[in-house]
Amino acid sequence: MNLLDKTIFVQENSMLQQNPHTTSVNTHTTPQDPQDSLLQSMLHSISPVPETLAEEALAKINNKTKPLGSLGKLEELACKISMIQNTLTPEITQKNLFVFAADHGITAEGVSAFPSEVTAQMVSNFLQGGAAINVLCRHQGIDMQVIDIGVSSDFEPHPDLLDMKVARGTRNFAVENAMSPQEVRKALENGMRTFLSAYEKKPVDIVALGEMGIGNTTTATAIICAVTGLPPADAAGRGTGIDDNGVQHKIKVIEQALAFHTPDKDNGFEILEKIGGLEIAGIAGAVLAAASKKCTVVLDGIISTAAGLVAYTLNPDIAGYCIAGHKSVETAQKAALTHMSLEPVLDLKMRLGEGTGAAMTIDIADAACKIMCEMASFDDAQVAQASTT
Amino acid sequence: MNLLDKTIFVQENSMLQQNPHTTSVNTHTTPQDPQDSLLQSMLHSISPVPETLAEEALAKINNKTKPLGSLGKLEELACKISMIQNTLTPEITQKNLFVFAADHGITAEGVSAFPSEVTAQMVSNFLQGGAAINVLCRHQGIDMQVIDIGVSSDFEPHPDLLDMKVARGTRNFAVENAMSPQEVRKALENGMRTFLSAYEKKPVDIVALGEMGIGNTTTATAIICAVTGLPPADAAGRGTGIDDNGVQHKIKVIEQALAFHTPDKDNGFEILEKIGGLEIAGIAGAVLAAASKKCTVVLDGIISTAAGLVAYTLNPDIAGYCIAGHKSVETAQKAALTHMSLEPVLDLKMRLGEGTGAAMTIDIADAACKIMCEMASFDDAQVAQASTT
Repeated sequence: MNLLDKTIFVQENSMLQQNPHTTSVNTHTTPQDPQDSLLQSMLHSISPVPETLAEEALAKINNKTKPLGSLGKLEELACKISMIQNTLTPEITQKNLFVFAADHGITAEGVSAFPSEVTAQMVSNFLQGGAAINVLCRHQGIDMQVIDIGVSSDFEPHPDLLDMKVARGTRNFAVENAMSPQEVRKALENGMRTFLSAYEKKPVDIVALGEMGIGNTTTATAIICAVTGLPPADAAGRGTGIDDNGVQHKIKVIEQALAFHTPDKDNGFEILEKIGGLEIAGIAGAVLAAASKKCTVVLDGIISTAAGLVAYTLNPDIAGYCIAGHKSVETAQKAALTHMSLEPVLDLKMRLGEGTGAAMTIDIADAACKIMCEMASFDDAQVAQASTT
Repeated sequence: MNLLDKTIFVQENSMLQQNPHTTSVNTHTTPQDPQDSLLQSMLHSISPVPETLAEEALAKINNKTKPLGSLGKLEELACKISMIQNTLTPEITQKNLFVFAADHGITAEGVSAFPSEVTAQMVSNFLQGGAAINVLCRHQGIDMQVIDIGVSSDFEPHPDLLDMKVARGTRNFAVENAMSPQEVRKALENGMRTFLSAYEKKPVDIVALGEMGIGNTTTATAIICAVTGLPPADAAGRGTGIDDNGVQHKIKVIEQALAFHTPDKDNGFEILEKIGGLEIAGIAGAVLAAASKKCTVVLDGIISTAAGLVAYTLNPDIAGYCIAGHKSVETAQKAALTHMSLEPVLDLKMRLGEGTGAAMTIDIADAACKIMCEMASFDDAQVAQASTT
């Protein structure tokens, strides 16, 4: 039993109190030996991307009819996706996007500009096709699904909605643990199942991971501060639109929660338990499952990136499979990306979440793969190369 | 006769020497009264975008189901294109991209890393479909045409090639004027004809303007320095890949040329004549024609932006129709954009030209229009709004 396995095993068996919000809907986590669990098997089935291909990929792109490096980030993406797919002819055909939705007990502290009910209202908006992420997924030809992994209210069945509810929201991490270890595990595994079930229908080439959860910039910021050591005072942002006083209050809430919980910065499982979110755990699970299938993952804004960071603490090899979709206006996102050595592709001054930035980046990644596959080399096109400079 | 009309009239009639490189291919500029010319009629048929719509467009986007301003540049683009199209339901269906190609006499000064023949070789590459811009136009569903407006060699006819050749390259502006006034006029008008002829086939909703011309970052930088007053030492960049010595040499060439010609910063016609490029004049003409038809224009890197700047000196109302596609790594581009109060949409660290950055931006603009048209409002979706903050 390695350290991580042991941690998960001990935590799951030592903390038996139940979250009173826990529902029995769609229960997937029957008692079992953690060694055999989906979580364990996923964590152990991620291989690092083949670094050996990096040089060949670079040589191929350098011989295209253009000045060296002149396609900038398109070239970097082409090389990265080549390594993920382990081929010099990378391709993006099947595009998926998951919006994980959940409520947050921390909203009791008054950290958000929007009331908590908006999480469920926005899920309904997603299902009606009227949200920004619906528009962008239709535009980009991305298959979109919404996952109720922890919304406080229930929904009528809908073909685009997966019922993966683990609990009716987290508890308020200002005063107690956000989740039980069982909930953490179930949320991670439900995230994995979400990806794996789409993948079984049709192998997914690229997946964007978005979220909806009023209060979740507070949760995500707390996670990023816990892992990276960034002080909350330098990290907390306006979320969906709080004012200066709101930001000061949010900083205090995060500082106090971190002092109260002192989560282990290297243990994503413990971080989720103490200060996490159900949608964040779900996304982390989806990241791990996607990496295990050599699928390119596009992270979105601060929440999606915090989830990527949690997955990174569980298995740092996931970074090789991840693209940072866009630069969030939330400053904590940068610390998380730096921690994983990732750089955002787009900077469209967006701060909506839902996966909107990631959806836009899928098009850039697709274009990058086509550059790698379709563009002529200097030899093909009989174009003279640059003089040595 | 207004000042501009008078300048063009006087220049065309006072300078009768012929460029020995001038060809008679596709001559459109028979002697005529400048008052009746295509150039004059275009310059006078551009209306400012209706500023009155700005408030309504903003109100519409502010009532969509998202925190205020949270879609960043997508919202700005949605509002700008609404104003261009004078509607609250802007739409991008027909997308065109023109690559104007021409040679530059200034290459005699050794300012480029690539030999001059590469202009023609790359035109052939475009016609074979193997260049970066071909890949990106196919990917984005953009109709692409290549315009020979001044390449030194000739081409076999090809369905995607427009023969609009004005001359076999410009003359070396280090020692003499780049073009005659007749050539300037013809190049501007051929650019206009390029747009108008595509528009007649099918009204163009958005047009991206790219270029190919070895040596043209030197020309574009000289133009931008002339108009904005930026010192060449702060402006000259690496182009397609020259080294530090090359950059120093390029700075000296531009400084000497500006001291020799002292072009009038407010007169784009004179600037083109003294230090211009044929593809730059062609693009400037296309910008003016597109603005006259209320078509959104996407500028590309430094060369395309310099051409936009020339058009701006001829009629500043064009800025309302222009989107700055992407941030070039060439620093002079920023000065030109600031002069027109434009901000680049993308920053993908690209420096290829051809229209590649602009092609990627067309997708963003398209998405922005769909956000404006398809996204639900708070009322539609019955989602609660933010508390006042």
